[in-house]
Amino acid sequence: MGSPSPVVVGVDAGGTCTRVLVADLAGRPLGRGHGPGANPLAHGLTAARAALRGALAEALGEVDPQAVESVVIGLAGDRLAGESDASAALAGVLGELGLTGRHRVVGDALVSYAAATPEPDGALLISGTGAVAVRVLGRAIADTAGGHGWLLGDEGSGFWLGREAVRTAVDALRGRAAAPRLAELVVAEVLGPVDPGIPGRMLAEQLLTAVYAAPPLRLAALARCVSEADRAGDPGAAGILDRAAGHLAALLAQVRPENPEAPVVLAGSCLAPDVLGRRTVRLITARGPARVLRAADGAAGAAWLAAVPLLDGEQLARLHEVLTVEPR
Amino acid sequence: MGSPSPVVVGVDAGGTCTRVLVADLAGRPLGRGHGPGANPLAHGLTAARAALRGALAEALGEVDPQAVESVVIGLAGDRLAGESDASAALAGVLGELGLTGRHRVVGDALVSYAAATPEPDGALLISGTGAVAVRVLGRAIADTAGGHGWLLGDEGSGFWLGREAVRTAVDALRGRAAAPRLAELVVAEVLGPVDPGIPGRMLAEQLLTAVYAAPPLRLAALARCVSEADRAGDPGAAGILDRAAGHLAALLAQVRPENPEAPVVLAGSCLAPDVLGRRTVRLITARGPARVLRAADGAAGAAWLAAVPLLDGEQLARLHEVLTVEPR
Repeated sequence: MGSPSPVVVGVDAGGTCTRVLVADLAGRPLGRGHGPGANPLAHGLTAARAALRGALAEALGEVDPQAVESVVIGLAGDRLAGESDASAALAGVLGELGLTGRHRVVGDALVSYAAATPEPDGALLISGTGAVAVRVLGRAIADTAGGHGWLLGDEGSGFWLGREAVRTAVDALRGRAAAPRLAELVVAEVLGPVDPGIPGRMLAEQLLTAVYAAPPLRLAALARCVSEADRAGDPGAAGILDRAAGHLAALLAQVRPENPEAPVVLAGSCLAPDVLGRRTVRLITARGPARVLRAADGAAGAAWLAAVPLLDGEQLARLHEVLTVEPR
Repeated sequence: MGSPSPVVVGVDAGGTCTRVLVADLAGRPLGRGHGPGANPLAHGLTAARAALRGALAEALGEVDPQAVESVVIGLAGDRLAGESDASAALAGVLGELGLTGRHRVVGDALVSYAAATPEPDGALLISGTGAVAVRVLGRAIADTAGGHGWLLGDEGSGFWLGREAVRTAVDALRGRAAAPRLAELVVAEVLGPVDPGIPGRMLAEQLLTAVYAAPPLRLAALARCVSEADRAGDPGAAGILDRAAGHLAALLAQVRPENPEAPVVLAGSCLAPDVLGRRTVRLITARGPARVLRAADGAAGAAWLAAVPLLDGEQLARLHEVLTVEPR
């Protein structure tokens, strides 16, 4: 009996869910796993370890742990990746499952980038709950702009969009901004059905009180009110999206390599090819030629990164193609 | 024995402390009380009631509760004043202390305004932890701009200043902004002494991690790093303060009555006659003539408001003068 053929494992451990892909070096998927978020910062280390263990076990199934030659875990929040205690504790889960081959914990930014392109140099712009732009050189993060997180105001992020939605709705209810549809949607989302006789100024106060009574990150859920109001022609919503796109394009410009051929990867729920994604791409290409790609399956990006030390350039390019066209 | 001569009570129930002034209608102080914050939103209703009761009892001393004809409580956060359950519960404390005369709970904005001027119409600009501008007509709030609170980003507020301080420090540590002194002060304040050999990019990550590990409102404490760095000639700090002053002047412009004689009252720790107060006054007066006053003792403003229903115009003007020149 020869040694089993080598296998790689990619983990995309996001804030809200964890996805695992187990594949061989030809890109054949051998198993997939899903679980709740495995971000220790958001969920605590115990819950994060449990989420990771469950998703890994599901994905591994009958795969011989000894066949796993390389594992890459992409962890939400660059600050946690690398040498931190949390990433070491997460990596400890691998040993518990018999995965004794090489492993690496990287920021989820690298995983998103690798999910879109095998090229070693380029830039990545993420707008999800937060917003960040990174320059990638030799598949490592060489520079970061933004990524301050919700508390410090990541302009153009989902949190920022939701925050601006409430501010604009409050101003509209006070008769100080033209955003009728946006105000309606935000009030309905936050307060539910309201008596149409309530004066706008009073609704504005109720809105503020309700927003402060909820956890701050709930604001990010209001981002979709902005898109919906924009599609209905609301000028206040359009203004927010224009400013968001401007902020995001400027963030990217801070880190983009000079070579216009270097790919620009867009990732995160707010940069889906929707109202904000379109506006942002328009602004990016208005600054000059740009090859804009979209990040797909993060677990596939992580699995591909796990294969990097095992294959040569041509094999890696082929593997990338197979892994990232695979249906999720 | 005739009925005791009438007495008024003013309460300034702020977020961090509560101040009470008991005075007769000639403006003679009969007692003062201090206590912790009595803001139910920040401290919970039980703690707020206890703080209010303690400060009131201290101020009343031997004063006959039957002599108290009128009480005004200025409560931090306009949203709580008026008809809310919380303000009713706070007012309930008055009955427990035998204060059965008239009483009114008003937003602390009105109390700050009244502390600076007896004139019924004008405007008030506050920058403390949050920032808000209100138009006062007939001693009532007729319009509000800003006041969205820390979460929604009150530009020019203490929270905003602290937030910008961290963002600018992070950018400076990443080599993306010129704010050497500000970065130094923020790092020292948040991280304490650090090894001078640590690369800036790593310090930036440590700074972000530490900021997110602390309660959000702690950011407001970093506002003074901005003032201090500005005094040392730091360009990043100067930029933050210029933007803050611009935001605050614009906020005020949204609510200022057209009559240039109507007073403009500045209040809040960030608008003290310091680096930001000076810049803001310069921008306000650059827009045209303005009579800029500063709010002093909020409890005196509340006591004066309590006397409004009891005296005529001339008596009120005299009382205002006596109450607000009194040493605190």
